[in-house]
Amino acid sequence: MTVVVSEPRALAELDDRDLARLDAWWRAANYLTIGQIYLRGNPLLREPLTAEHIKPRLLGHWGTSPGLSLIYAHVSRLIRHTGQQAVYLAGPGHGGPALVAAGYLEGTYSDIYPKVSQDEAGMLRLFRQFSSPGGIPSHVSVTTPGSIHEGGELGYVLVHAFGAVMDNPDLLAIAVVGDGEAETGPLEGSWKGVSFLNPERDGAVLPILHLNGAKISGPAVLARKNPDEVRDLLRGHGYDVIEVEGDDLPGMHHRFAAALALAWNRIREIQTAARAGEWDGSRPTWPLIVLRSPKGWTGPDEVDGVTVTGTWRSHQVPLSGVRDNPEHLALLERWLRSYRPEELFDADGAPIALIREQAPEGDLRMSATPHANGGLLTRDLDLPDFREYAVDVPRPAAERAESTRKLGELMRDVYTRNPDNFRLFCPDETNSNRLGAVFEVSDRAFMEQVTPDDVAIGRDGRVMEVLSEHNCHGWLEGYNLTGRHGMFATYEAFAMVSASQTIQHGKWLQEARHLPWRAKVPSLNILLTSTAWRNDHNGFSHQGPGLIQNVLTQRGDVARVYLPPDANTLLSVADHCFRSRSYINVIVIDKQPQLQYLSMAEAVEHCARGAGIWQWAGTDDDTSDPDIVLACAGDVVTMETVAAAQILKQRLPGLKVRVVNVVDLMTLPRRKDHPHGMSETLFTELFTDSVDVIFSFHGYPGAIHQLVHGRPDADRFRVRGFVEQGTTTTPFDMTVRNRTSRYHLVMDAINNAGRVPHGATELKTWCEEQLARHEAYIVEHLEDMPEVRDWSVRTSGSDR
Amino acid sequence: MTVVVSEPRALAELDDRDLARLDAWWRAANYLTIGQIYLRGNPLLREPLTAEHIKPRLLGHWGTSPGLSLIYAHVSRLIRHTGQQAVYLAGPGHGGPALVAAGYLEGTYSDIYPKVSQDEAGMLRLFRQFSSPGGIPSHVSVTTPGSIHEGGELGYVLVHAFGAVMDNPDLLAIAVVGDGEAETGPLEGSWKGVSFLNPERDGAVLPILHLNGAKISGPAVLARKNPDEVRDLLRGHGYDVIEVEGDDLPGMHHRFAAALALAWNRIREIQTAARAGEWDGSRPTWPLIVLRSPKGWTGPDEVDGVTVTGTWRSHQVPLSGVRDNPEHLALLERWLRSYRPEELFDADGAPIALIREQAPEGDLRMSATPHANGGLLTRDLDLPDFREYAVDVPRPAAERAESTRKLGELMRDVYTRNPDNFRLFCPDETNSNRLGAVFEVSDRAFMEQVTPDDVAIGRDGRVMEVLSEHNCHGWLEGYNLTGRHGMFATYEAFAMVSASQTIQHGKWLQEARHLPWRAKVPSLNILLTSTAWRNDHNGFSHQGPGLIQNVLTQRGDVARVYLPPDANTLLSVADHCFRSRSYINVIVIDKQPQLQYLSMAEAVEHCARGAGIWQWAGTDDDTSDPDIVLACAGDVVTMETVAAAQILKQRLPGLKVRVVNVVDLMTLPRRKDHPHGMSETLFTELFTDSVDVIFSFHGYPGAIHQLVHGRPDADRFRVRGFVEQGTTTTPFDMTVRNRTSRYHLVMDAINNAGRVPHGATELKTWCEEQLARHEAYIVEHLEDMPEVRDWSVRTSGSDR
Repeated sequence: MTVVVSEPRALAELDDRDLARLDAWWRAANYLTIGQIYLRGNPLLREPLTAEHIKPRLLGHWGTSPGLSLIYAHVSRLIRHTGQQAVYLAGPGHGGPALVAAGYLEGTYSDIYPKVSQDEAGMLRLFRQFSSPGGIPSHVSVTTPGSIHEGGELGYVLVHAFGAVMDNPDLLAIAVVGDGEAETGPLEGSWKGVSFLNPERDGAVLPILHLNGAKISGPAVLARKNPDEVRDLLRGHGYDVIEVEGDDLPGMHHRFAAALALAWNRIREIQTAARAGEWDGSRPTWPLIVLRSPKGWTGPDEVDGVTVTGTWRSHQVPLSGVRDNPEHLALLERWLRSYRPEELFDADGAPIALIREQAPEGDLRMSATPHANGGLLTRDLDLPDFREYAVDVPRPAAERAESTRKLGELMRDVYTRNPDNFRLFCPDETNSNRLGAVFEVSDRAFMEQVTPDDVAIGRDGRVMEVLSEHNCHGWLEGYNLTGRHGMFATYEAFAMVSASQTIQHGKWLQEARHLPWRAKVPSLNILLTSTAWRNDHNGFSHQGPGLIQNVLTQRGDVARVYLPPDANTLLSVADHCFRSRSYINVIVIDKQPQLQYLSMAEAVEHCARGAGIWQWAGTDDDTSDPDIVLACAGDVVTMETVAAAQILKQRLPGLKVRVVNVVDLMTLPRRKDHPHGMSETLFTELFTDSVDVIFSFHGYPGAIHQLVHGRPDADRFRVRGFVEQGTTTTPFDMTVRNRTSRYHLVMDAINNAGRVPHGATELKTWCEEQLARHEAYIVEHLEDMPEVRDWSVRTSGSDR
Repeated sequence: MTVVVSEPRALAELDDRDLARLDAWWRAANYLTIGQIYLRGNPLLREPLTAEHIKPRLLGHWGTSPGLSLIYAHVSRLIRHTGQQAVYLAGPGHGGPALVAAGYLEGTYSDIYPKVSQDEAGMLRLFRQFSSPGGIPSHVSVTTPGSIHEGGELGYVLVHAFGAVMDNPDLLAIAVVGDGEAETGPLEGSWKGVSFLNPERDGAVLPILHLNGAKISGPAVLARKNPDEVRDLLRGHGYDVIEVEGDDLPGMHHRFAAALALAWNRIREIQTAARAGEWDGSRPTWPLIVLRSPKGWTGPDEVDGVTVTGTWRSHQVPLSGVRDNPEHLALLERWLRSYRPEELFDADGAPIALIREQAPEGDLRMSATPHANGGLLTRDLDLPDFREYAVDVPRPAAERAESTRKLGELMRDVYTRNPDNFRLFCPDETNSNRLGAVFEVSDRAFMEQVTPDDVAIGRDGRVMEVLSEHNCHGWLEGYNLTGRHGMFATYEAFAMVSASQTIQHGKWLQEARHLPWRAKVPSLNILLTSTAWRNDHNGFSHQGPGLIQNVLTQRGDVARVYLPPDANTLLSVADHCFRSRSYINVIVIDKQPQLQYLSMAEAVEHCARGAGIWQWAGTDDDTSDPDIVLACAGDVVTMETVAAAQILKQRLPGLKVRVVNVVDLMTLPRRKDHPHGMSETLFTELFTDSVDVIFSFHGYPGAIHQLVHGRPDADRFRVRGFVEQGTTTTPFDMTVRNRTSRYHLVMDAINNAGRVPHGATELKTWCEEQLARHEAYIVEHLEDMPEVRDWSVRTSGSDR
């Protein structure tokens, strides 16, 4: 810990040099921000501004930028004074040019992108690249040094900040919350991160709520509420509210410096006490700053007789049509010159010494902090040998076990071995999902009141349970992006709540792959359990395997989906995922007792290949093509497939049936579509190139159709899966309703087999009888039931 | 308006008869709740309880139920006193048995499901159906009379409540918020509904935050926070907080009655003043009740020496193993008998008169209110003739127009004609999405401070803008489910934020189709604009056509996806969607100026068929099969396809090219998979049964593969689409990167045509030259750009 507790007064008060430095830096940052939005020539304004210097298409967001830069400047000063490690998360991430300008002024930008040098030519590149083809997005993005937070989809700045500081005691996350973003559900649901933050072991988040009154074209709720209500709201969330308001200069510098010093000292008091063993265990009241400053501050007050600064009109480009409107061009030039660029940059165009000395040293610069390039700090997990948790499987499909319980035991020991490098995130369902073994070694984190009836709840807990998929997912992202490992475990259906986060994080990882300076980070591991097939009692709203569908849309270099059918395959897959970097790994398996198929040795081999023939399940002798292939991916459908093969073996021994199980869904596409894609040779070895395949899939059938497209004669794949036929029923009836039952599969096999042996017709009749008996059983129940459901629906929507 | 302002004191104070009635009703509701969880025989406990009377699998949630029933009873009394129309939304919807019990006691349940009669046999059915195969889910669901709120996925109770009361001045929505649900992002983001509610024109929401301390296995944040903080938080959100706490009886009845009377009188004061023209325009401080009562209240205090009532252990089934554990069985019997069922139900098993008189009259019963079966109240929209908004298209592909601007004009007039029956919901982007014509007739609703610089913001506004997809989507759902029409317009990529709501609402609509008593409601219309292809400047995070993928997973009787290529088709599609019932209609079209293809007459015919040959675009003479089919769905890909056909027409006239445009995506699957699916004959007329098809799709290519599966020789479909190749670039480069550019399509056509005329090789070379020139242009730009992007990725991940 290198933080030096500054003499509070020195930090809170600005001397002349401080002021000059802050003022120069802020003017430079604002100038560079405007330059990015407007200029494609004459970057230092060394000649009169003409229409030719103006970009043809004006894009970008000015409104939030001056505020973001002001905060950045003051935090940099704090760092210089204190040595505090800090990461800056810009909630109003559309203020991208401000953060890019900061990185440029700190020299980091030129280090990473040498052509954007600290001179006139480099500055011109800085301007031209912004929101231009081949350049960078208009908001904070993966390309922005110092960022772990994309500014596109709003709402996640606090979850990322809290995730970043967990188990990161020396880190301070500055989280600027815009008043637009503050209206989103995910953001409003994330203030409560303080209820889960341990001051002894975790770092701190300093939220800065930046209220400037308006969004893109309308007012923002928090900006227009009575300030008393805003204060109450934030106090209610558990914060000590510090307010700064105004537009006077240098008054605002003085007041913001004092506010920041106050906040930082309060944070240090809390942390120092907790780390000295003087914490009484009550949830600290962490500081928070409300900054009220004009939108588009320092921009043109009026344009065409209409107020701009301080209104929604300054949100994006305050002066439009600059190339064609000489008055606007003159206004722009006056505006740019108001920052006195000639004082800020030297003859070469480099920032003057006064500005350069504003930046903290080396890695302490927020644009250069390794915490925002977490791959640099990533340590491998210390993993136990997953084989030690094996379920004994003397023969396949004989015993049942709760597979996820084994994963819980593995994670328990991962917790023990990695006391600051691994966390499990789960919306209130760790026990329900049979992962409760982790509680043997860690409580759930909780800083609010704990009662004697609480179990596995405590200040020192590191299992993260909050009834919010958004918080769980976002915390894990923040934890991952700062270099630590974890897993998000959730009900399969409700993984859709945070699907947008999964997609955006995937986009982040995809973009990062193109940037050599971004080191790889631990993968985002998502365990989908309590699946559609076994939510028979909860009904239709709990039956939805939709996340898979969304992960499949991502690029192959990021997205991976695993469907281990039993405990040993699950353990092998989990071990693989925990070791991987910069992927999204989705693992799908139910929590209920389920049949076990493979010994650990077999599981390891099966998972390594990703898919394979289960010779023991079929009647395929490998000497020639089978008559039919029964393929499966997913635990319940595998059980039904194995049962169907068993029925065929016993009752129609003349039919050559091959059973193929797929664990790694991404082995199915061609290798050019996904790096896991199996070779055409292997694909043909498993599926032949002409025999019909009945593929029974855990999720929506369309997924398999799209994955096998382009494989030899893909039309021969008949896919069964979840066809949205759900209700409150029995687990077996779920398979009947979706036509994935063993009896359906037997009939499918017979109907599609290349050769139909004697006895097939009788067997089909027998299957129909079994289904009729099942139907009768259900209808008998139904007799007592009020709902006149249309049970005939089960025959429609199928894949025939 | 039939509300009678009760003499406050009479409402606030309970006389003996009131107390007896409330007590009896509450005991009966609790008894029936426990019966649903436990019993399959002996429903009235007329014989000693034995193991045979106990269900084999114990499911359901007791913990929240007594509180839900207490509130229900008191609101029913309020309704009896006042004639207030009310709808009850149970946020802790897993307390399903409590709401089912309420409907049963009110007689509604038996009206709808006659076999669940108000006698012993009916009660047994009530118990047996609960969370049983063929029965009803354990939570509040579509099958529950009086509900517009599914209790599965948590977080939406307030958005549904606010949507329900918009333009519904006589309705009071009682919204019970559970302390678990209160942790979700969507719920926390929805308290601010009051900032958008007009007391004159809208009804009222009375949130009742029910804090009982715990979730499934751990504490809840709000329940464990310092009560001062909870009060501050809710005041900060803008509420007048009324608190009731305890477990003493009848004290709690007295206090809750007084609290409810206080709240209701406050609501009526606000409304009466506003409707008498005495509102000063400041945002009212609406009342809110915080109810603190023990979890599992009136349940067994201790089981096996461990405290149950008041702890997380009472969340679901407080007594387990009852069939095998005689002690638990005895405890259960004692618990059930503590409600004295013999006093509550008569000889037949029907509720006694005291209980029956607790129910309000007829439709005023909350389980019978037509507001919760909104189809009963649905009035057709008064729609102008959409043809009057037509863009003049003298010849195809010659002029450009912003298509969504026309839709804005149509919606402007829909607003005018339907002053209380239509609203547009949009996250701060109405203008940006070119729908701003609506502001000519309606402001945006906003009840917080308005400043002189605000434009189109006001108290009387009925355009709903809030920077929260969750609020927009949820408000529209509430508005729809209570019988009114609307549209949710949003950036395509960020529609994923609320994708889970789209899916859950789809499930609701699917389930409702099986219940004849549920009248059809207006469709949920979603406009996806600012699409992936035209977010070139915003970059990768804004490029995601993922919602389509999710809607495709829903059943065909609910989900529809339209991709109008221009303004006239958009108008025709929108008109169709506005007239439809109980669908989810997704309409995808960008907001930028785009080529116009069809006259209004052609557009109407094209949309009616859903897909058709564009003879003018191709070289297909209809006398024989073409050499290649170029198909397209989506505006940008249609433009590229038409351009490709034009190139082929000019440069390779010998090639017979057919252009097929698809507006209604659901015409592609077979009719058995979707009711819009075109006949095999029509499919063959459009696509032939053997000619290769180059299908250029707006979304992810896999969608088309899954839709055409099962069509003749589906393998011949080569699909181009968005393959997740995005960045900050030009619109045209977006098509190049994703291989949907005109040049790619020309080369695809040549490579896959059945017959290759002379000149094809030269044309391919020419296309390659064009792409090389484009590449050179981009690389030239790139020279100035910092990012060393790997541009070679554009050649991978394609569909070849």
